[in-house]
Amino acid sequence: MKIHTKLLSALSSLALLVGSAGIHASEQKPNIILIVADDLGYADVGFNGSKDIITPNIDDLAKSGTSFSDAYVAHPFCGPSRAALMTGRYPHKIGSQFNLPTRGSNVGVPTDAKFISKLLNENNYFTGALGKWHLGDAPKYHPNQRGFDEYYGFLGGGHNYFPDQYQAQYKKQKAQGLKNIFEYLTPLEHNGKKVKETEYITDALSREAVNFVDKAADKKNPFFLYLAYNAPHVPLQAKDEDMAMFPNIKNKDRKTYAGMVYAVDRGVGKLVETLKKNNQYDNTLIVFMSDNGGKLSKGANNFPLKAGKGSTQEGGFRVPMLFHWPKHVPAGKRFSHPVSALDLYPTFAALAGAKVEENQHLDGTDMWPAFIKNENPHKDEPIYALRHRKGYSDAAIRLNQWKALKVNQQPWQLFNIENDISEKHDVSKSNKALLTDMVREMEKWSWDNQQPKWFHETAEGANWRLDAMPRFDKTFKTTK
Amino acid sequence: MKIHTKLLSALSSLALLVGSAGIHASEQKPNIILIVADDLGYADVGFNGSKDIITPNIDDLAKSGTSFSDAYVAHPFCGPSRAALMTGRYPHKIGSQFNLPTRGSNVGVPTDAKFISKLLNENNYFTGALGKWHLGDAPKYHPNQRGFDEYYGFLGGGHNYFPDQYQAQYKKQKAQGLKNIFEYLTPLEHNGKKVKETEYITDALSREAVNFVDKAADKKNPFFLYLAYNAPHVPLQAKDEDMAMFPNIKNKDRKTYAGMVYAVDRGVGKLVETLKKNNQYDNTLIVFMSDNGGKLSKGANNFPLKAGKGSTQEGGFRVPMLFHWPKHVPAGKRFSHPVSALDLYPTFAALAGAKVEENQHLDGTDMWPAFIKNENPHKDEPIYALRHRKGYSDAAIRLNQWKALKVNQQPWQLFNIENDISEKHDVSKSNKALLTDMVREMEKWSWDNQQPKWFHETAEGANWRLDAMPRFDKTFKTTK
Amino acid sequence: MKIHTKLLSALSSLALLVGSAGIHASEQKPNIILIVADDLGYADVGFNGSKDIITPNIDDLAKSGTSFSDAYVAHPFCGPSRAALMTGRYPHKIGSQFNLPTRGSNVGVPTDAKFISKLLNENNYFTGALGKWHLGDAPKYHPNQRGFDEYYGFLGGGHNYFPDQYQAQYKKQKAQGLKNIFEYLTPLEHNGKKVKETEYITDALSREAVNFVDKAADKKNPFFLYLAYNAPHVPLQAKDEDMAMFPNIKNKDRKTYAGMVYAVDRGVGKLVETLKKNNQYDNTLIVFMSDNGGKLSKGANNFPLKAGKGSTQEGGFRVPMLFHWPKHVPAGKRFSHPVSALDLYPTFAALAGAKVEENQHLDGTDMWPAFIKNENPHKDEPIYALRHRKGYSDAAIRLNQWKALKVNQQPWQLFNIENDISEKHDVSKSNKALLTDMVREMEKWSWDNQQPKWFHETAEGANWRLDAMPRFDKTFKTTK
Repeated sequence: MKIHTKLLSALSSLALLVGSAGIHASEQKPNIILIVADDLGYADVGFNGSKDIITPNIDDLAKSGTSFSDAYVAHPFCGPSRAALMTGRYPHKIGSQFNLPTRGSNVGVPTDAKFISKLLNENNYFTGALGKWHLGDAPKYHPNQRGFDEYYGFLGGGHNYFPDQYQAQYKKQKAQGLKNIFEYLTPLEHNGKKVKETEYITDALSREAVNFVDKAADKKNPFFLYLAYNAPHVPLQAKDEDMAMFPNIKNKDRKTYAGMVYAVDRGVGKLVETLKKNNQYDNTLIVFMSDNGGKLSKGANNFPLKAGKGSTQEGGFRVPMLFHWPKHVPAGKRFSHPVSALDLYPTFAALAGAKVEENQHLDGTDMWPAFIKNENPHKDEPIYALRHRKGYSDAAIRLNQWKALKVNQQPWQLFNIENDISEKHDVSKSNKALLTDMVREMEKWSWDNQQPKWFHETAEGANWRLDAMPRFDKTFKTTK
Repeated sequence: MKIHTKLLSALSSLALLVGSAGIHASEQKPNIILIVADDLGYADVGFNGSKDIITPNIDDLAKSGTSFSDAYVAHPFCGPSRAALMTGRYPHKIGSQFNLPTRGSNVGVPTDAKFISKLLNENNYFTGALGKWHLGDAPKYHPNQRGFDEYYGFLGGGHNYFPDQYQAQYKKQKAQGLKNIFEYLTPLEHNGKKVKETEYITDALSREAVNFVDKAADKKNPFFLYLAYNAPHVPLQAKDEDMAMFPNIKNKDRKTYAGMVYAVDRGVGKLVETLKKNNQYDNTLIVFMSDNGGKLSKGANNFPLKAGKGSTQEGGFRVPMLFHWPKHVPAGKRFSHPVSALDLYPTFAALAGAKVEENQHLDGTDMWPAFIKNENPHKDEPIYALRHRKGYSDAAIRLNQWKALKVNQQPWQLFNIENDISEKHDVSKSNKALLTDMVREMEKWSWDNQQPKWFHETAEGANWRLDAMPRFDKTFKTTK
Repeated sequence: MKIHTKLLSALSSLALLVGSAGIHASEQKPNIILIVADDLGYADVGFNGSKDIITPNIDDLAKSGTSFSDAYVAHPFCGPSRAALMTGRYPHKIGSQFNLPTRGSNVGVPTDAKFISKLLNENNYFTGALGKWHLGDAPKYHPNQRGFDEYYGFLGGGHNYFPDQYQAQYKKQKAQGLKNIFEYLTPLEHNGKKVKETEYITDALSREAVNFVDKAADKKNPFFLYLAYNAPHVPLQAKDEDMAMFPNIKNKDRKTYAGMVYAVDRGVGKLVETLKKNNQYDNTLIVFMSDNGGKLSKGANNFPLKAGKGSTQEGGFRVPMLFHWPKHVPAGKRFSHPVSALDLYPTFAALAGAKVEENQHLDGTDMWPAFIKNENPHKDEPIYALRHRKGYSDAAIRLNQWKALKVNQQPWQLFNIENDISEKHDVSKSNKALLTDMVREMEKWSWDNQQPKWFHETAEGANWRLDAMPRFDKTFKTTK
């Protein structure tokens, strides 16, 4: 009887294989391009109403696609936000809630958290990552080990923009025999091999994106491109010609920042051209977004959101975002329900027909069905932000029209964020039971958070232990 | 060649299957029923000499079976004690030494600790759990995921008893839109689906036990039933008719408690009837016990044991227990050697012919051979209790006739517990080397304890870290 | 198609198997003998210039082999150093950076770190361990579980030397019914079975080494012998006849210590004789070394190195070492490049043709190619020492000619250790950038260190937590 079962099982597998091959041939899987700008402010793209910076190419995508008013990333700063993009997990669930050590390390985002690139790659996608990595620079955390067929960029958390400049600095320190040279100065690489870049970095990454699409278009497989610009992250370094586009901006930082964004926009334009040239434009989902809020002290603008990068106020983790896919994504729409960057993993997987294993827990939801129907993909389901500071934590909970906020060791506040986008009117006093209930829900969520696997600086880790962090007793306290 | 191998392997599997089926047919495996009362005191059953509470059906089992004078649970309170019953591990070895978070969570008893239900289920037992779970309420910790074919009950740490009452309270809070409603009020469930219960909970669980046995008797497989009454745990809520059985009890709490125990006894009676009706009585091992000592402030009585629930004094973790199995368990006997609830896992496994994998460490011992011969199954082998408090721990070591006790930050004491059941005469001064040796042995044992994976309350976890717990240096200190 | 692939794969495996069998048959794998003395000082062997202690047999090996001037162990005390020898990992990477609990425990070197013995055993080596274990005494950590076919010795961290003496003490405590008897007094064992030893322990171990080689020589497989003498570790107990060899040594401790070393040397002589007798001398790589620096207060001499056992100064972890293998190891040479005990694992593996799995990270390097060419196997690659103390850590970095040192909470110092073996001239002031760079490199290395899985004493673990160790912020601080 055992034999029969096995034979039957083998036969039905065969049938399935034939069957599914047939199905796959008939249903064309979309290419997916995820473009992530670095520290780009909510108000720093045309489609979100920027009054000084112009982003014509990005705006074109927004006009023929859908932009999002309430798109949240999973963390208000870079490393954890990107870890969440790649893994579909809140960074706190995988010990990745801090940026990787500034001075280098041998740690990285845990390999038992499967990257979306790996999943898509296993499902026949040709995959590429370009630009900033910041998810681990030891060999086992390399992009090529995490599902990317192609990688061109720099493994650290940022980079200087002008090759002539940084290459000279690097050479000098290397000559002194130093092993630890600031990662913003190190040579770029292609699939693990150092390359000598010559272009302004943003343009270099756009060039590589174009090359990737040219190459990908030749294959019969669909492709996934993760284009991670480091712009407009510091150092503020723009090309003169790009700054010259903004004669009316007087502030030096803002002018430079604007030029950096403009270079990104130029790259997006070239990428779109290339898609069209290769007949891939109609079959490609483009997602454009920022990894976290803009840094106000470094040229960014998050208006009308409060605060910026690093904060659990809206300016910290609500970001500009758009979807573009002709005939699939509604054209010229603004989606105003809350969505999370954590949703991208399951959404991409579903669009690609890639099965997520049952035991692979994901924190987001496939937003596509609700998105298409213009419904709230997170109805009655909270979206969290949690940022650990020295001895305490800031937190936020977005639930339907509500936003609960804990910031700077003050008591929890509550805002009707749909009516009060700038978090001005605390309505906690008249909604005590609701607020308490929201905080309880986040407290429940917190129990399987993991201790951080690293810290930005060694001293931060020492303080974490000295302060007996995470002090969730303080974070989730709703009574005096 | 690979195919040949598979065919051969399939054929030999088939042979094995036929062979083993033959064996199983000839050796009848017993059904096993484990009945656990909640917070039931040592002195609150007739067979342990209760003078006010009557438990005629339970006493009948004791009379035709064997009761235990020195049965210890693995922890003096609920969650960890139950985790130990299910896993055969000291809760400290699997990070389960605290009750699950009161306000809910997404954690539970680690899935790499295989439940006895899973092992029996894999060995062809039809398995059911009824009543209180308290081992994790996230999907992956659900009884149906842990080896139980059937589950009817409530996943939290307790429940209110009268449906009319609690359902009204639940409905009211639900209407306010709250997500976090006290678990004692939530609807019961059957295999993950909410049900609308109508009976007094103890009677409802007894009804389901009867139904389970009726259903199980139809199958050719043996069954394992884990019947986890929440009675007589608080809230103290008894039926009037049950309280009316105790006209001589004047204290309101004690009277209610007595009525609650009486309802449990009634259920045991119905269960026994059903076993007889289905011709399963002779082939069923029944174990009746409490999960920890009675709570003195809530109507219980542990006489002659000192203290109660939560303590490492005898009243905390020595419990009423009986075994019943016609022709296998000696009738009308009192077993006076120490046994541990940790022994049940390996004992059940052995009776069921279920092989425990070599790398699955269990902390108890198959007590059956010693039990049958009326010998000490733990001769020269210590039984421990360890209860963490704020900044320190209480502990106990039972070894042969000795009981070493550490309580309330006082120095270790030693009792000849066979002669001094009430822990009145500390003989540590005249047995210093022995006491030191016993404490050393427990210190050795402690080295592979795991950090708790959760705490009862968030603040308890913060304090644990602030106090640098476990402070085993203090716990195992035997010198001044 | 699936089937075709499998058949092809099976066929090519077969081809590979035939092919590789052929290769193995033609290349003879060497026997490997690793002799480790315990707490033997740098200056306490003739080949390192001892002026009072004579070690004629060991010196003979040095003369016809190569001795090492700059051999470092991975930790300046015993347990972690041995864990590193067996696993090829810095002890900090596997939570083994403390000695096992003095009073016994159920913990040991993690089983997911594969011992070199296991690897060699899997590659057809006949394997034996003799003497001190100190890597875990619970069953799953037993030598026979870690790849050793044969084991004769004692599982703890040391042992008394005269059977008549310690057996009497043991018997007395046993009679008192104690379970926890000092491990230096317990009976020796052979493959898990207690034996009644009658000889002075060093001689007993030498006898067993001879027996092992006699037995191994009968097999067609190569052998690996790990001969772990506990001499000259305390207690200082030597045979009168051995002490009599040193009439000119007046200091009692030194005289006893000298006698103990002399007994080791006698054992080495007998072992060499036995190899010759069995025609194995020419095909055996002998490594002789100490597990850490000598303990100055207990008779040892590390001249010209500073300090001793436990220190990150050179006397703590630079040890006497020699290689001997006729026609393979250069005869009569002194190798003066730095090497690490961590190199032995990959070197032995390579010599044995044993493949280390790709995901099995090793911290050392196969030193053989560089050793043969008299080149630095660690050119530009640092060798570390890190010793945790109460609330702070001592550290050391050996890189090319440099030695960076952090000791006793003093600022980092830098020595040109090639010119300044005694660490007298701190040149940090004139090499600030270099020193900072070296420390940064070690800080990077530290990020994936694991928390200790045990401590020498329970209180040490409590202090570790109270002090929020490891305070790497302090350890790797290079500014004021």
